[in-house]
Amino acid sequence: MSAQYQKFLKVLEKWPTDKTKIGSGVQRRDEPARKMSNEAKIISGTAVAKNIREELRGEVTSMTRLLPKFTPGLRIVQVGGREDSNVYIRMKVKAATEIGIEAVHVQLPRTITEVELLDKINDLNDDPRVHGIIVQMPLDCDSPIDSHRITDAVAPEKDVDGLHTVNEGRLAIGDLGGFLPCTPWGCIELIRRAGVEISGARAVVLGRSKIVGTPAAELLKWAHATVTVCHSKTRNIEEITRSADILVVGIGVAEMVKGSWIKPGAVVIDCGINVKPDPSKASGSRLVGDVDYEEAKKVAGHITPVPGGVGPMTVAMLMKNTVRSAARALDRQMRTQWTLEPLPLKPLRPVPSDIVIARGQKPKDIALLAKEIGLESREVSLYGNKKAKISLSVLDRLADKEAGSYVVVAGITPTPLGEGKSTSLMGLVQALGAHKKRNVIAALRQPSQGPTFGIKGGAAGGGYAQVIPMEEFNLHLTGDIHAVSAANNLLAAQLDTRIFHECTQKDKALYERLVPRIKGQRKFSPIQLRRLKRLGIEKTDPDALTEEEYGAFARLDIDPETIMWERVVDINDRYLRSITVGQSPTEKGISRETRFSIAVASEIMAVLALSRCLKDMKHRLADMVVAFDRSGKPVTADDLGVTGALAVLLKDALEPNLMQSLEGTPVLVHAGPFANIAHGCNSIIADEIGLKLVGKDGFVCTEAGFGSDIGMEKFCNIKCRTSGRKPNAVVLVTTVRAIKMHGGGAPVTPGAPLNKQYTEENLELLEKGLPNLLQHIANGQAFGMPVVVCINVHVTDTQAEHELLKSASLKAGAFAAVVSTHWSDGGAGAVELADAVIKACEKGNNFKLLYDLELPLLDKMTKIATTMYGAGKVVLSANAQEKVKRLTEAGFGNLPICMSKTSGSLSGDAKIKGAPKGFTLDVEDVYVSAGAGFVVAMCGEITKMPGLSTRPAIYDIDLNTETGQIEGLF
Amino acid sequence: MSAQYQKFLKVLEKWPTDKTKIGSGVQRRDEPARKMSNEAKIISGTAVAKNIREELRGEVTSMTRLLPKFTPGLRIVQVGGREDSNVYIRMKVKAATEIGIEAVHVQLPRTITEVELLDKINDLNDDPRVHGIIVQMPLDCDSPIDSHRITDAVAPEKDVDGLHTVNEGRLAIGDLGGFLPCTPWGCIELIRRAGVEISGARAVVLGRSKIVGTPAAELLKWAHATVTVCHSKTRNIEEITRSADILVVGIGVAEMVKGSWIKPGAVVIDCGINVKPDPSKASGSRLVGDVDYEEAKKVAGHITPVPGGVGPMTVAMLMKNTVRSAARALDRQMRTQWTLEPLPLKPLRPVPSDIVIARGQKPKDIALLAKEIGLESREVSLYGNKKAKISLSVLDRLADKEAGSYVVVAGITPTPLGEGKSTSLMGLVQALGAHKKRNVIAALRQPSQGPTFGIKGGAAGGGYAQVIPMEEFNLHLTGDIHAVSAANNLLAAQLDTRIFHECTQKDKALYERLVPRIKGQRKFSPIQLRRLKRLGIEKTDPDALTEEEYGAFARLDIDPETIMWERVVDINDRYLRSITVGQSPTEKGISRETRFSIAVASEIMAVLALSRCLKDMKHRLADMVVAFDRSGKPVTADDLGVTGALAVLLKDALEPNLMQSLEGTPVLVHAGPFANIAHGCNSIIADEIGLKLVGKDGFVCTEAGFGSDIGMEKFCNIKCRTSGRKPNAVVLVTTVRAIKMHGGGAPVTPGAPLNKQYTEENLELLEKGLPNLLQHIANGQAFGMPVVVCINVHVTDTQAEHELLKSASLKAGAFAAVVSTHWSDGGAGAVELADAVIKACEKGNNFKLLYDLELPLLDKMTKIATTMYGAGKVVLSANAQEKVKRLTEAGFGNLPICMSKTSGSLSGDAKIKGAPKGFTLDVEDVYVSAGAGFVVAMCGEITKMPGLSTRPAIYDIDLNTETGQIEGLF
Repeated sequence: MSAQYQKFLKVLEKWPTDKTKIGSGVQRRDEPARKMSNEAKIISGTAVAKNIREELRGEVTSMTRLLPKFTPGLRIVQVGGREDSNVYIRMKVKAATEIGIEAVHVQLPRTITEVELLDKINDLNDDPRVHGIIVQMPLDCDSPIDSHRITDAVAPEKDVDGLHTVNEGRLAIGDLGGFLPCTPWGCIELIRRAGVEISGARAVVLGRSKIVGTPAAELLKWAHATVTVCHSKTRNIEEITRSADILVVGIGVAEMVKGSWIKPGAVVIDCGINVKPDPSKASGSRLVGDVDYEEAKKVAGHITPVPGGVGPMTVAMLMKNTVRSAARALDRQMRTQWTLEPLPLKPLRPVPSDIVIARGQKPKDIALLAKEIGLESREVSLYGNKKAKISLSVLDRLADKEAGSYVVVAGITPTPLGEGKSTSLMGLVQALGAHKKRNVIAALRQPSQGPTFGIKGGAAGGGYAQVIPMEEFNLHLTGDIHAVSAANNLLAAQLDTRIFHECTQKDKALYERLVPRIKGQRKFSPIQLRRLKRLGIEKTDPDALTEEEYGAFARLDIDPETIMWERVVDINDRYLRSITVGQSPTEKGISRETRFSIAVASEIMAVLALSRCLKDMKHRLADMVVAFDRSGKPVTADDLGVTGALAVLLKDALEPNLMQSLEGTPVLVHAGPFANIAHGCNSIIADEIGLKLVGKDGFVCTEAGFGSDIGMEKFCNIKCRTSGRKPNAVVLVTTVRAIKMHGGGAPVTPGAPLNKQYTEENLELLEKGLPNLLQHIANGQAFGMPVVVCINVHVTDTQAEHELLKSASLKAGAFAAVVSTHWSDGGAGAVELADAVIKACEKGNNFKLLYDLELPLLDKMTKIATTMYGAGKVVLSANAQEKVKRLTEAGFGNLPICMSKTSGSLSGDAKIKGAPKGFTLDVEDVYVSAGAGFVVAMCGEITKMPGLSTRPAIYDIDLNTETGQIEGLF
Repeated sequence: MSAQYQKFLKVLEKWPTDKTKIGSGVQRRDEPARKMSNEAKIISGTAVAKNIREELRGEVTSMTRLLPKFTPGLRIVQVGGREDSNVYIRMKVKAATEIGIEAVHVQLPRTITEVELLDKINDLNDDPRVHGIIVQMPLDCDSPIDSHRITDAVAPEKDVDGLHTVNEGRLAIGDLGGFLPCTPWGCIELIRRAGVEISGARAVVLGRSKIVGTPAAELLKWAHATVTVCHSKTRNIEEITRSADILVVGIGVAEMVKGSWIKPGAVVIDCGINVKPDPSKASGSRLVGDVDYEEAKKVAGHITPVPGGVGPMTVAMLMKNTVRSAARALDRQMRTQWTLEPLPLKPLRPVPSDIVIARGQKPKDIALLAKEIGLESREVSLYGNKKAKISLSVLDRLADKEAGSYVVVAGITPTPLGEGKSTSLMGLVQALGAHKKRNVIAALRQPSQGPTFGIKGGAAGGGYAQVIPMEEFNLHLTGDIHAVSAANNLLAAQLDTRIFHECTQKDKALYERLVPRIKGQRKFSPIQLRRLKRLGIEKTDPDALTEEEYGAFARLDIDPETIMWERVVDINDRYLRSITVGQSPTEKGISRETRFSIAVASEIMAVLALSRCLKDMKHRLADMVVAFDRSGKPVTADDLGVTGALAVLLKDALEPNLMQSLEGTPVLVHAGPFANIAHGCNSIIADEIGLKLVGKDGFVCTEAGFGSDIGMEKFCNIKCRTSGRKPNAVVLVTTVRAIKMHGGGAPVTPGAPLNKQYTEENLELLEKGLPNLLQHIANGQAFGMPVVVCINVHVTDTQAEHELLKSASLKAGAFAAVVSTHWSDGGAGAVELADAVIKACEKGNNFKLLYDLELPLLDKMTKIATTMYGAGKVVLSANAQEKVKRLTEAGFGNLPICMSKTSGSLSGDAKIKGAPKGFTLDVEDVYVSAGAGFVVAMCGEITKMPGLSTRPAIYDIDLNTETGQIEGLF
């Protein structure tokens, strides 16, 4: 498409190359003289304009061939209703429509104020369907409006009138890449199409107006004429005018230029339009120019008539500018490669602390990054200048765009120190984006604040592969987790309050309160009508219900023993693991035991991550099962009336957050469901927006929590099943250290020094640990994905150790196995990894899911356990068997399974390292997350509320009140 | 100061009025010829430049006289280290320094990339100390940088080189209000100062460069010369040149213009600088211009030499531009009146619902509003485009600025429906800002989300007097309340966890964990050193402590019975009013009873509201007393090690939020401490920023919760005491309805229809209720403030009722009593109120506090109760007596009192209406909020956790997933 746009530039470049000499009056050989006399050739603006409009129609046709939904858009803003303006606007709309431009006449009332008009123009500036904006002058308004301010409010890149100061400035200094003012551009085009050479000619421009004289003189100058500008203060104007080979007149005085002013053979372009009394005309007058046409045509070589000269050209050039602007927009839209400018990285040795590295790099302005990756300004809500929310409307705008490759970064079974999955992901995207110049987006989870204040160590990656600014990333960000907490706890409050009110009120009283009479009227709210419908009551008049229906409607009859909904805080607060609520006398003894979880363990967080749009989110919120009633039927959030309120609280949270890597490439941070009891992946929406933004040659790299047996399995079977996306490759992150641990190495404990086994070469131990790596490679292959093994280097690793991991990986069928030093080198250290990922994604996509939803719940669990974990079988506890039965009966049997299992082992027992085979996996409990859309199988006790240690990270964290900087956070 | 700036414009306007004719070679009478021959007069650029620099020094002196801290600032950005550039930069720095401009040479390495350079320039653009930026060309860089992009990255309003496309554009169209390029401006100035008339002259410019030829031609044209531009493609250049009365040469060829090219008597301005070999010079070369000087001076009337002609003028004009830019900045800084453009209001009849009104008005872009009220862009963090956070650095920048008038809006004892205090406040600021054109800021509290989802009715005002967008205002806003909750609960978690760890570990083990050995090293964190110091242990080596000191340091020994710190949620969750925590087996039976409050009741919210800066906030957070130890000593947040972590969580929350009124005037929303158990006012920081932004003729209007006996009393005695501000006036909002209630009217209940007494004229009832109004008037007077009574009109009020209220108020000594219809008419309905407030503030400020801090706690309570409530005496319960004793001993006796009393009555009993006198006020309990800095006196039970009703507002709230709009919120 760039070719398309290049053509326009060539039109401009053509000017000085035209061959015909001027000043001689000699007629061009290829064009028969219209008259046999010595009179000037008439330059018909009408005819030339028609040609131009036809050319433009052709351009528009070829644009729509490239992108069928694309239409050039012009908006003509008019204030008030002057009749002369109406005539001009009708002409413009007609010309535009014929060409295929969608021209809209935006009529605004005379009462509009300057602020309101500016706001209106801003809206048009931001509207991606609009490529050209003109404000019809003069403004016909009641209150004074500064028309210059209005002209300058139009975005320069949509200023198809060419009147914005920036476009005037570009022209003045010979930069013809902006928009040229229509009338003077029309003049030049007439001269050019008449076959007259401008370069070297002497040109005189009469008049210095902003719209005609000044830009005409500049255009002539940059077409290499020697230009003199005359105006009211000019002496000897006739003499100067007579020196002109090219004379452009725009001085506003009827027939001022006489034949005697004109050099014989000169080209005369008359921009004037004046009304002259003419009794011979029915109207009593006729239009004349600033040149005395009858006299002039006897002397000039070429002359434009009035009307039919410059007039039609003004409209034609307006159309040309509009098409040109549309071509640019189309070009941007079709451009596959971003023009992203990476932030340079200058790694220090030895590698400093994460915070020192992060502070050493100044992030680029997030608005700039958003622009670089093709976001429109209206799609971006800035939160300060280092983070922004992205509107879901991007998905509509890019609905037809091809998606990029989808890469999931998973890990082997990790040591308690973690094996650097986030760091490797960041290294990979920095390599792809800043070094391989590919469009790439990292899609990460937002970390919980619990660990931030608990254990030292952020989740932003590490070393020279990080998200910045890390303090924003690890703290409130844009408040999404807070919104999840607020929604979760509002539902909890409503749940307990409802139980209380049902306990303390009779059916009728409850009903009267639920459907109160306000000013004599009573009606159901929409959410109450939904509940009636679920109950099979097809009534809409609250007074029409029977006694029995009152009760059915008003009484949810929740069985407190079955309540699954818990309150949450985003803090490690162990004292909230088990609590009794409702002990105030005001609750009349209706207390119960419950607990708080950490906020990221909320089902709402999983809903946020799995929703595909606002509507889908609302449905999922409505469907969340909070408990069962005494008859065993599920009670949902919708039954409690909170669906809309929850959606309102979560509306902004559903928009992903844009941040950046240390090398200035884009990162989307969104959602962070616990990988223990939920699916542990970032949001579908962030990935979808990312895949569309990067386009078909680009990449979205996302992370799946814990080992491939947990995070990747759920990524595929839950997240990808929901989104319908097929990932193209998996990057499996491993370390020498972790494999040694699986080979029987000493325990690895945070805080304690590492055993020598890990800091010295030990090929034997490494060899013994390989089965764990091989199981994870096989896990990736089970989904039909090419597996790229990434060996995340630690300084104490040896080359022989790396070679052993590589050869074992390749032997096991890994697509590639590469050593990566992104931690110490940034993207430059992950280029080989990036190359391997690019190649893996170029392979055909053979992704397949592991199981069908139709299988019974136990069969699905068994499939996962045997394939992914190496288990022999799954055994359900009595409780779990009962739950499976109940959930299946309640219609939840065809949901996917979310396994809740230790992350420390492939088995259900965290102490068993390596790759055990044939073991029995015990499932203790089963419950449904109906909103998230999965059934959770609990393999043993999983805490949802971490605690603080005696000396948590809190002690080191401080705010420097002089600099405002956070200290000790990482 | 505008006069200052006007002078500069006049310089430009002077051009065409100079009298001397040119083209005649005639010498000016007032200037003796330098030579007796016919040779041209030499125009000495050196001399003229010196004059200009001296003029500028004078200008700078007068600027600093106006504002002593003000210094014009110039930044000269250099990439690399070219020696020729160094020479130029030294010249510029020298010239600037002599004039009094602070010129900084910003040297950047050759390795800089384009993105980094752009970023650097952006920083300078945003730096208010910088008035001029030039980028020294050529760039001496390793990687390619687009110099045009760099030039255009400089903010046009700081582009003192005049090379930005916008400034070129302004010049092109004859708008001389931008910055003129220095060299051509210097040329014109030389011509002008030589006494040559430009208007009407024929001028020829040789060369069309962006820096010299093109702008010189434009300047000559707009000074009304008839200008011809010649360049490399010009034919007959000698002939054209010979026609020039004024010849400006900038073509880059040494001595190209010969004597024969020059019209006798012409003015010749030579912009060329070329090096010519000259064996007679020691250096072997000398500088020559583009004009053959020796020949030309024999023909020309005036001529500039090289060197010493145009060269020095370039530097002088650069200085002139810089001073001009500084003058504009100073002008903006000293300007007292904003140029704020209100949003027009078109009230409908009947008045629609609040949400319909709010939706009907499109808020202006918040960045625009921020600019209108004088905020620099670096001081504003946008949160989308309708709300923004304001940096505390504003207070530093405006430290020397005079503050505006400070108005507090208070109320009488309200009915449960509220009497429209917020609405009246909004009406008042809309009237002051949009109708009286005064600088005014409304400073409001952020509402809790609890009531938003509980009771219908937002806190954004109502009718045509509102904050918009109301949904942002009533929901998460920018997350401040969430941050308060997070901080509050982190402290709670750390408190319980610490108790648990102290219960389960011996001194030594505890100590080892608190001060662990990491890689062989152990050290105290700064917060631990603070605790040591408080304990009187002056050691810094963890291994140097004695056994006893281990224990003293490690064991806080909290008495669980004394714990005052509670967890919070921002939700009406009645089940959390009394709970038992720590019931999980992991807590080993160390459970305890506690409760949750609503987040706005957190002491941290009061701290946020009362802090004067980050540092002050941190101190207050450190001082918060969470419990007492078993020896009765207070245990603080700092003892628990959380001060820094809390400050980090609250760093952004301390920045006030900018929003706007329905009429587009600024509103600061910040903090929202409960008025029951805290002081119930918005933040000191928001008020301080507001007072500085509005300036000495402006107004900050803020609200105090509940009746004047509660909110206003605390506003004065706590908030103003802390901030040191003296409010200028109080607006006392009353309604006919409330006064009737106090006169014995039927109970007023939300949801129930109003008794006829309230909807029909009833002067008798009104008369009886007057004492309540009079007590509140007296309350304002007790603080020495003029009281403006605002009668907030309801449609059923009668004129007689209004008159009765007015006359009673005036008789009681109110400064004014006005009827206000802002609810139905917006600011237009509150103009009379605004006028009264303006007049009240023009009175001298006689504000005084009610009591001295030195008084005993009981005496302070008594003073408040007798003066503000009409009580006869205060009686402490035994418990309260004991607490008063303990707090006094612990050093909290000299804090102000925060009375916690029902808002429904002047007395301690909500059922007693009117204005009871001589009653006994019972104080049941007393505790300290040491961080907030007050002692709370509890007059009866005050719930800190509201509940949801059977049918809360939740049922009506919904999100329209098609439009994204929130429905039913209000």
